[in-house]
Amino acid sequence: MSRSPAGADPATPYLRVDVARLRANLERTARWAADAGVALRPHAKTHKCLEVARLQLDTGAAGLTVATIGEAEVFVDAGVEDVFIAYPLWLTDQAAARLRDLAGRADLAIGVDSAEAAARAARLLEGSGVAALMEVDSGQHRSGVAPETAGQLAVAAVEAGLPVRGVFTFPGHSYAPAALRTAADDEARALRVATASFRAAGLEPDVVSGGSTPSLEHTHTEELTELRPGVYAFGDAQQWELGTMEPADLALVCRATVVSHAGGRIVLDAGSKALGADRASYATGWGRLPAYADARVVQLSEHHAVVDLADAPLPALGTYVDVVPNHVCAAVNLADTLWAETGGGLEAWSVAARGRNS
Amino acid sequence: MSRSPAGADPATPYLRVDVARLRANLERTARWAADAGVALRPHAKTHKCLEVARLQLDTGAAGLTVATIGEAEVFVDAGVEDVFIAYPLWLTDQAAARLRDLAGRADLAIGVDSAEAAARAARLLEGSGVAALMEVDSGQHRSGVAPETAGQLAVAAVEAGLPVRGVFTFPGHSYAPAALRTAADDEARALRVATASFRAAGLEPDVVSGGSTPSLEHTHTEELTELRPGVYAFGDAQQWELGTMEPADLALVCRATVVSHAGGRIVLDAGSKALGADRASYATGWGRLPAYADARVVQLSEHHAVVDLADAPLPALGTYVDVVPNHVCAAVNLADTLWAETGGGLEAWSVAARGRNS
Repeated sequence: MSRSPAGADPATPYLRVDVARLRANLERTARWAADAGVALRPHAKTHKCLEVARLQLDTGAAGLTVATIGEAEVFVDAGVEDVFIAYPLWLTDQAAARLRDLAGRADLAIGVDSAEAAARAARLLEGSGVAALMEVDSGQHRSGVAPETAGQLAVAAVEAGLPVRGVFTFPGHSYAPAALRTAADDEARALRVATASFRAAGLEPDVVSGGSTPSLEHTHTEELTELRPGVYAFGDAQQWELGTMEPADLALVCRATVVSHAGGRIVLDAGSKALGADRASYATGWGRLPAYADARVVQLSEHHAVVDLADAPLPALGTYVDVVPNHVCAAVNLADTLWAETGGGLEAWSVAARGRNS
Repeated sequence: MSRSPAGADPATPYLRVDVARLRANLERTARWAADAGVALRPHAKTHKCLEVARLQLDTGAAGLTVATIGEAEVFVDAGVEDVFIAYPLWLTDQAAARLRDLAGRADLAIGVDSAEAAARAARLLEGSGVAALMEVDSGQHRSGVAPETAGQLAVAAVEAGLPVRGVFTFPGHSYAPAALRTAADDEARALRVATASFRAAGLEPDVVSGGSTPSLEHTHTEELTELRPGVYAFGDAQQWELGTMEPADLALVCRATVVSHAGGRIVLDAGSKALGADRASYATGWGRLPAYADARVVQLSEHHAVVDLADAPLPALGTYVDVVPNHVCAAVNLADTLWAETGGGLEAWSVAARGRNS
């Protein structure tokens, strides 16, 4: 762990974490999940960071969710004992060997959304103890089987020799202003149908897993045993614009410097290589500025954010301006370090699983 | 330098460079620039890679362009002797110290687009030998002063004590199907006006610098001394869709694996964390597939690309499928390694300047 030298800020653009807000976000959601009687298994793809994972586990998370074997390796190497790779992996021999190694050191589960992938995993992971969850599509139409076929897929997996732990979905279509509640409704329906389909096939799912940050508060918690939100830890401009997190709860910003006043606007040194280029259809720009609620990032290049400040006077050249990225998972994955504001200065948190896409 | 172990491909998703195509792209543009009598100073932000920089310098590039001090450090540390940071830097004491160090080892120039930044640079870089180019706006409306005021800015810089080498612009508004030629026309006009404005102020610009990959072949080379394209080295789906590079010239793909057939489409394991999330208004999807000209990436998450293959039969689960990223600079900046296909297998090229945003 390193600290920034006294009196010297890190060079902009850099990501800055408000640790008090981060803790508050983690604790609020952990309390809510505990009250609802569901396990919380936060998605670590958002932060990719051991320090944040430890805070999540210390506030009651049952384990971590990750997207890739590489992410799982980083967290298991650091001592995390329960990891779910919520992804329909297609295993190579090398991937299977890595999973076997992980399963010797942690409770490990993977996603499956086809009988072919289940049979392959059963063969390559035989005896390793790696379990599987069947992925169902609850409306995002990305991966996952139709919920009514989940039991049939689970039977195929069991018959192939793969231990089946339950079912999961990601209601990612919640990322739209009008869909926060309806996506949660879809999620509940899909998981109910999937559970019924397991039972009709003579199987009982131990884990029924869902959750996304936008739909979280609308979750039908009676239909699930586990939630896997990721973004809730930091929040971002998408959550701000969806109305699912307050600006005062957003725990990560990109600190940037005003480098130009060209055209009577400000240009910041935080571009798409620091903020990420995500721009959902409902987004009003490429990130938001906490100090300027009416401002919009109207143009984004790799190292320039052009900001229209509306009627606000232009801050001087050299001024720091904070930008909340649209999609925090993307911004974090561009950085090697998160600078954590702990009250006693800035602490460097390594983005340990950055770039671990495989 | 490392090689992939015999018989084992890198785990997908990974970036793969066709070195023969890369060389052909570099040589073609170098020949064209030499024939036109302009210097070529490729923008290294595209590749961030010493191996590609060496190929560019070996095929006649006059030096490199970079966007940040951190990128300059990587290339100067590797022995590159002439670097232009084409960015309107606002210098801190730390940034100035880093530039002084670089200037001791290389010919170094920076961008300036305000009298304040020029005065600050003059003071902090005094005696270092760092030169400056005045940035003018040729129609992108990002950074840069109005061309007719370039001479006035140059005079302010000279009077403050900053050595002025010339003028530069980036005609980035060329990134639109109807603007390839008009952006080049705008660039020529802006540089002509800026040059006249220098002369009216009693100054002669030694360097008149422009260029962007989409506008390149329309450049009015008689108005410039130097071109700074970046993307031309690899190409990407943006160039393909703009019609400025042929699919057969594209030298970098993201190799991905088919992990799911959900919904009767294919899902690849290359998401926005491998491809980048850039999607220009004219783009037809989030990347293009060389083997399937009619296919479109219709949905992109962090680790999923959902592909509509049109009428093509679905490749089996586990099949490799190559995707050309929309914006190659963004994709490269997400990877630690480019896997270069040299004919004798895959060679690992480090993305040495990845993430060097400051």
